[in-house]
Amino acid sequence: MTTIVSVSVNLFHIPLAEILVDAKHGDHTHFELITATVTLADGREGTGYTYTGGKGGHAIAAMIRHDLAPMLIGKAPDDVEAIYDAMQWHVHYVARGGIASFAISAVDIALWDIRGKTANQPLWKLAGGKGRTCNAYCGGIDLGFSLPKLLDSIQGYLDRGFNGVKIKIGQPTLEQDVERVAAVRKLIGPDVTFMVDANYSMSVDEAVAAANAFRPYDIFWFEEPTIPDDYRGYAAIAEIIGIPLAMGENLHTIHEFGYALEQSKLGFIQPDASNCGGITGFLQVAEMAAEFGVPVCSHGMQELHVSLLAGLGSKGWLEVHSFPIEHYTRRPLEVRDALAIAPDEPGIGVTFDWEKLEAEDLLSRETRGAA
Amino acid sequence: MTTIVSVSVNLFHIPLAEILVDAKHGDHTHFELITATVTLADGREGTGYTYTGGKGGHAIAAMIRHDLAPMLIGKAPDDVEAIYDAMQWHVHYVARGGIASFAISAVDIALWDIRGKTANQPLWKLAGGKGRTCNAYCGGIDLGFSLPKLLDSIQGYLDRGFNGVKIKIGQPTLEQDVERVAAVRKLIGPDVTFMVDANYSMSVDEAVAAANAFRPYDIFWFEEPTIPDDYRGYAAIAEIIGIPLAMGENLHTIHEFGYALEQSKLGFIQPDASNCGGITGFLQVAEMAAEFGVPVCSHGMQELHVSLLAGLGSKGWLEVHSFPIEHYTRRPLEVRDALAIAPDEPGIGVTFDWEKLEAEDLLSRETRGAA
Ligand SMILES: [Mg+2]
Ligand SMILES: [Mg+2]
Repeated sequence: MTTIVSVSVNLFHIPLAEILVDAKHGDHTHFELITATVTLADGREGTGYTYTGGKGGHAIAAMIRHDLAPMLIGKAPDDVEAIYDAMQWHVHYVARGGIASFAISAVDIALWDIRGKTANQPLWKLAGGKGRTCNAYCGGIDLGFSLPKLLDSIQGYLDRGFNGVKIKIGQPTLEQDVERVAAVRKLIGPDVTFMVDANYSMSVDEAVAAANAFRPYDIFWFEEPTIPDDYRGYAAIAEIIGIPLAMGENLHTIHEFGYALEQSKLGFIQPDASNCGGITGFLQVAEMAAEFGVPVCSHGMQELHVSLLAGLGSKGWLEVHSFPIEHYTRRPLEVRDALAIAPDEPGIGVTFDWEKLEAEDLLSRETRGAA
Repeated sequence: MTTIVSVSVNLFHIPLAEILVDAKHGDHTHFELITATVTLADGREGTGYTYTGGKGGHAIAAMIRHDLAPMLIGKAPDDVEAIYDAMQWHVHYVARGGIASFAISAVDIALWDIRGKTANQPLWKLAGGKGRTCNAYCGGIDLGFSLPKLLDSIQGYLDRGFNGVKIKIGQPTLEQDVERVAAVRKLIGPDVTFMVDANYSMSVDEAVAAANAFRPYDIFWFEEPTIPDDYRGYAAIAEIIGIPLAMGENLHTIHEFGYALEQSKLGFIQPDASNCGGITGFLQVAEMAAEFGVPVCSHGMQELHVSLLAGLGSKGWLEVHSFPIEHYTRRPLEVRDALAIAPDEPGIGVTFDWEKLEAEDLLSRETRGAA
């Protein structure tokens, strides 16, 4: 049986076209893309990845290089789920979320890439094979946009064929948020699905007040009203407002998803395979969410998640995020009749354009070496 | 007002005198020590640190160097609590526990070192000033020791003047654990405080069975019977067994401590300033624990925690851990009349012997550079 002979890591700092702002993470000037390529003795290889909003990339790369790679080399690649468990235990003392979840995710996705290529199967089939399409919406990091610019960006989503849109909320006053919500609903008409995302900037009381004020505008979900750690606070909000709550981008272990599904009265769950343990972690969350009857959506990296939501036959929605990882791949996200279409090639269906990544990377060679 | 001009990081891999084994982390061949030295424009400086069981050190160093240092440089050092909050938010998306908690801890401790030196106050005074001594016990990573060797090591603790001892449990059979527990109690007599630590290797049912079997041996606390994520599982165990439960070394955010204190029916809480946010994080936990009436103990780095437990006037117990960080400092832990004595020098009272560290470090220069 062939074994893993190397795990190589790349860290890219990719500038954003403009500075993007949300309610809690300040200015985003670039995002970090961390790739992990696993190579086998027989020459097969797979590439996985994770990303950040601009911080932590060096630490993620360091953990893959110094902690995960040494334990992986020499192992058979086939039992991805067993390797996943082994990685979690290997770094357990410094893990259970945080950087380790991102590092494990990148490696796990690489192993799924090998699994798919070996089986000659696309990811949507490996993930359940229920279908090749899923609902999709666009969400921008648009809190800093003027109202005209916000509406322009929303119109752009509609022009690209999407029938769902999401905006950031968390303006200095609730009145300003309501003004933007009202203007967006007016622009998109009654038939487009419309979500809002507070990036946990509100207290429970503030979130309740906001939801009440948004009620006339048919909000499909209210995302991260308050800090992700306050599982019961979510339930307190959900019991009052009558708008489904969504969260998940800040949950990094299966236990955290368990707390949220058990305690938070969520309408939707939004795991991100880049930070919840890769495809193995995502599928574990999907299985748990099914037990609770909560539809699985996604956060970020649409070029990968499309295959998971489609293959699972999820009634949830794919987030088309404004970190444009897909621009640096060979297959930008395909959307037809407002549905996103999963790639049909063997493996994860995400192939990086390395030249394009290198060309735009902000990182000097020297700094990269110190990852 | 003076500002921070540099944050420098060192990573040391320190070999252990022998391979140490516990129930969940496998073999420990060395530990990692990561130091962070903060230097001010006026020349003042402070050094903080964190440690791991052998994995994650490069990632911790990378986060301090690439994510925390750039945001700290230029800031005034005085409002340590505000800097602590700013660090947490700065890396929030990749944090909320894990590597970030270790990285922030090291920097926070360095800032407290500066605070103490500036105020000409020792840490035990800054931490409350209630006293200079605390209870202390020795706990080894001794699961792999033969019974004679285990008893030798326990006798060694008594010979060093301690009146509390802890052993690892999680042998292949419960009978073996009971045999060791019985033999230790026989050796130490009825008056020495005796704890056991399962390193979360048991299910809830297994922990209940073990506690029932240990009942004749007057166990002071049962540490980490099951996985730290199962807060309610702890409560289920506590309700049955009649031996107080202890945990904390695997809790890394104030929210995690909140879940444990609210849900787990703990007898003792064991924060570790190296992984719960430094001295600021430790004191937040202590404040929360006081509200719940749960005595604060500690995990690891006794040379620092002695000042915190003493200053807080805690009725809890200081763990004297078998990672001998104190051997690489200018002041090994002082014990008199079975009480540990806090250092009285200004600052955190932990001054590293850099030559000794460099001499024993396993890390090549080349690898260190890539941290
Ligand atoms: Mg969001
Ligand atoms: Mg322990």
